[in-house]
Amino acid sequence: MSLLKVNFSRLQRDIEDLAAIGRSEKDHALYRMALSGNDLQAREWLKTRIEDAGLDYFMDEAANIHARLNWDEQQASVMTGSHIDTVPGAGHLDGALGVLAGLECLRCLKEQDIQLQYPLESVAFTDEEGRFGGMLGSQAMSGRLTPELIHNARDLDGHSLTDIMAKLGMPSMNILRARRRPESIHAFVELHIEQGPVLEQQNMCIGAVDAISGLLRWNIRLLGEANHAGTTPMAMRKDPLQGFAEVSSALPRILEENGGPRSTATIGYVNCFPGAANVVPGRVEFSLDLRDTDMRILDELGNAFRRAITAIAHRRGLMFEYEEVSRLEAARCDSGIVDIVKDVSRGFGYHAMQMHSGAAHDSMMMATMTRTAMIFVPSMGGRSHSPAEWTPWEDIEKGANVLLNTLYRLASEAA
Amino acid sequence: MSLLKVNFSRLQRDIEDLAAIGRSEKDHALYRMALSGNDLQAREWLKTRIEDAGLDYFMDEAANIHARLNWDEQQASVMTGSHIDTVPGAGHLDGALGVLAGLECLRCLKEQDIQLQYPLESVAFTDEEGRFGGMLGSQAMSGRLTPELIHNARDLDGHSLTDIMAKLGMPSMNILRARRRPESIHAFVELHIEQGPVLEQQNMCIGAVDAISGLLRWNIRLLGEANHAGTTPMAMRKDPLQGFAEVSSALPRILEENGGPRSTATIGYVNCFPGAANVVPGRVEFSLDLRDTDMRILDELGNAFRRAITAIAHRRGLMFEYEEVSRLEAARCDSGIVDIVKDVSRGFGYHAMQMHSGAAHDSMMMATMTRTAMIFVPSMGGRSHSPAEWTPWEDIEKGANVLLNTLYRLASEAA
Repeated sequence: MSLLKVNFSRLQRDIEDLAAIGRSEKDHALYRMALSGNDLQAREWLKTRIEDAGLDYFMDEAANIHARLNWDEQQASVMTGSHIDTVPGAGHLDGALGVLAGLECLRCLKEQDIQLQYPLESVAFTDEEGRFGGMLGSQAMSGRLTPELIHNARDLDGHSLTDIMAKLGMPSMNILRARRRPESIHAFVELHIEQGPVLEQQNMCIGAVDAISGLLRWNIRLLGEANHAGTTPMAMRKDPLQGFAEVSSALPRILEENGGPRSTATIGYVNCFPGAANVVPGRVEFSLDLRDTDMRILDELGNAFRRAITAIAHRRGLMFEYEEVSRLEAARCDSGIVDIVKDVSRGFGYHAMQMHSGAAHDSMMMATMTRTAMIFVPSMGGRSHSPAEWTPWEDIEKGANVLLNTLYRLASEAA
Repeated sequence: MSLLKVNFSRLQRDIEDLAAIGRSEKDHALYRMALSGNDLQAREWLKTRIEDAGLDYFMDEAANIHARLNWDEQQASVMTGSHIDTVPGAGHLDGALGVLAGLECLRCLKEQDIQLQYPLESVAFTDEEGRFGGMLGSQAMSGRLTPELIHNARDLDGHSLTDIMAKLGMPSMNILRARRRPESIHAFVELHIEQGPVLEQQNMCIGAVDAISGLLRWNIRLLGEANHAGTTPMAMRKDPLQGFAEVSSALPRILEENGGPRSTATIGYVNCFPGAANVVPGRVEFSLDLRDTDMRILDELGNAFRRAITAIAHRRGLMFEYEEVSRLEAARCDSGIVDIVKDVSRGFGYHAMQMHSGAAHDSMMMATMTRTAMIFVPSMGGRSHSPAEWTPWEDIEKGANVLLNTLYRLASEAA
C-alpha cells in the first residue's frame, strides 16, 4: 500500500498564520474566544484559505465552518475537524491543529485527484472551549441542544449567545437546524494534541484514542462552626477544613478500591470561610472532578465518594451539601477506525499507542451519532491552554500524515 | 472576711451606654476601631465618666486612658484594665467589660472610703485589637516597642500610626515615653470574657486564668505542578493540594505526639491556584496557627510540623516555603493572684475554674513587667468578635465582684 503525504510546509505556514490572529503582545498567548472579534477574523481567514484551495465553503446554522470536497448532499461524508476558538491565554495548537490538518488533507486529496467513495468535510466547530457552555457546534450537529439551553447560554460577562449571534445576522434558535442526520456522516476523525504527558513520557509520537472519559463534577460545601483559634479547645471544634483534609486524603483509597487504570479524581478548587489565620473555619467549599471512560466505574466512584464524605461529616458533626454541576457521558471510539489509525501508523514505521482521552473534545459529541476516533500527537510537558503549549513540528507532520491516510482509507471504503 | 459588691445597675448602664457608641444600624455590630472617630467619641465619654466619679483622669503618651484613685506617683499602683477599641463588627463586651468593671471597682472603693495600701488605676489600653498591630498601649507601657515598629505601623487602608496620632496632636515617637518602670506597678488584673466555650460547657461562671498561650503563626506555600485534570494520570501528578490534605490530616497526630492538653493547631486559611475545577493545582497557600502556654511545647510542635511537611513534600516531589509571621511569647500568670481570685470566688460561693487563655490580651504584655492574672466570665456559645457575643448579666455581676475583691485584697497587701 502506498502512503499519501501532506504538504507539510503549507500546513506549517497555515498554523503560523492562524496563530498570529488573536495573539497578545503582552504574554504571547492567544485570545480567540468563540465569536469574539478575533474569532471572527480567524473565520474570515479560514474562509479565504478554503476558497483559495478550490474547496467548497459552507457555514451551517450553528456557525460551524465546513470545507468540502466532492460535496454531494445525497451521500454520507467522511468528516474531520476540530475548533479554532481558544480559551483566554491559549497556545497555538489545541483545536487549530485539527482544523488546519483537516483542510490540508482535503487539499492533498483534491490536488492528487484521487478517486473516493465518499465526499469529505473538514469542520471548524463553534465554541468548543466553552464561552457559551462548550462543544456548542458539535452538540448542535449531533442534536443535543434544546431551545432552553440556547436561550440561557451566556458568557462570563453576561452576554447572551442570542445577542451575539443576532449581531452576526444569525437567529440563535436556528442553531437547532444544524443537526445532521446520523446517516449523513460515514465517519468522523479528529487530530488533536494530547494535552497530557503520556505520549512524551512513553516516547511515542502517535496516540490512537479508543475512548473519551466521561466526567462528573460536583461543587461541595462542608459546614461546621467558625470559632476562635485560640480559645476553642481541639475537642470542642467542628472544623470543616479538617473534614476536608480527611475527605481529600481518602481520594487515593477511593480510586484504588473503586476505580480503574483510567480513573482520575481531582480537587482543583478549595476555599474556606471566614478564611482568617486565627479563626477555625465555619465553611469549606471545594470542587470534585471525577473521570473515567466507563460510566459504571464513574458512578461507582461517585457513590464511594458520597459514602466517604457522609461518614466523615457524620463522625465530625459537620453538614455537607453538594451539587452535580456537570455530567458528561463517556464516548467509546470505533474500533475499526482505531485499527486503521494503528495500521496507517505502522505503515509509516511508528507504533501508535492505544490510549484514552481524559479531556473532552468535539469527538465526544460526534461519537454519539457516527463512528468516531481521535489521533493524538504529543504535548511537551503535557502543557496546553497556555503559550507554553508545544508539539515538535516533526510530530505534527506525522500526525497530519496519519490523519490523511486514515481519511483516505475511510473515504475509499466500499459504499 | 466581708465581701465588697459593685453597684451593678450602674455598671450595666455604663456597658449599655458605651455599646451605643460606634454601633452600626445595619448589623447591630460595633465599629470602634482604635483611634477612629467612634473610638475618639468613646474616649470622650469615658473621660466624662471618670471625672463624674471624682477619679483622676490621665492620658499617657500612648493614648492609654487611666482612671486613678489615691494617686501618688511615688507609690506602686494596683492596676486593672482592658481596652475599649473593637474589631470591625464586634460585640458589646470584649475589652469594654474590663475597662468599665475596673472603673466601677474604683468608684466603689472610693465611695466606701476604704483604706488601701496602694493607689489604684483602671486603664483603657490603646489599640488592643490590632488596627496598628495590636496590644499597642500595653506594649508601650511594658516597654516592648521600638522607634522602627512605631514608624512602620500602618492600618489596612495604609494610614500610618504617625499621621493618625499627629491629627490628635500627639507625636507618635512619644509613645515610647509611656513605658512604666516595673516597680511602679504592684500588680495587674484584667477581667475579660472567655471568648471560648469552656466555662459555659463546664457550667462555671468564673475562670481564674493561670497562663496565656504563646503563638506561632506561619504562612506556608506548597508548590507542585499545575496540570489538566483530565489528561494527567494520577501517577504523573505533583498535586500540592493532596500534599496539603496529608499535612493537614497529620495535625492531630502531631498534637498527640508533641502537644499538651492546652495545645491547639489551626489552619484557618487555604487557597489553591489556579483554582479551577478542571486543573490540578500548582500551588497551595495556607496558614498555620499553633498555640500553647509552654513555649518549649510550642517549639516542639513547630519542629514536628516542619518535619512532617518536609517528609510529605519530599515524598510527593513538592517544594515548600514558609514564613513565620508571628511569634508571641506565652505569659505565666502570678499564682498568688490566681489563688486570690479562687479564694474570693469561693467566698461568694462559686468554684473558679483554673484555666488558660488561648487568646492574646493586654495581660500578656503586662505579665512581662508585673504580677498579672486574668478573670474570665463565660461567653455563650464561645462567640466573640461578633454581635452574637453575649454573657449573662448575672455572670458579669459575679465577674465584677470577683475583680473588685481581688483588687481590694491586692491593694490591701502589706507594702
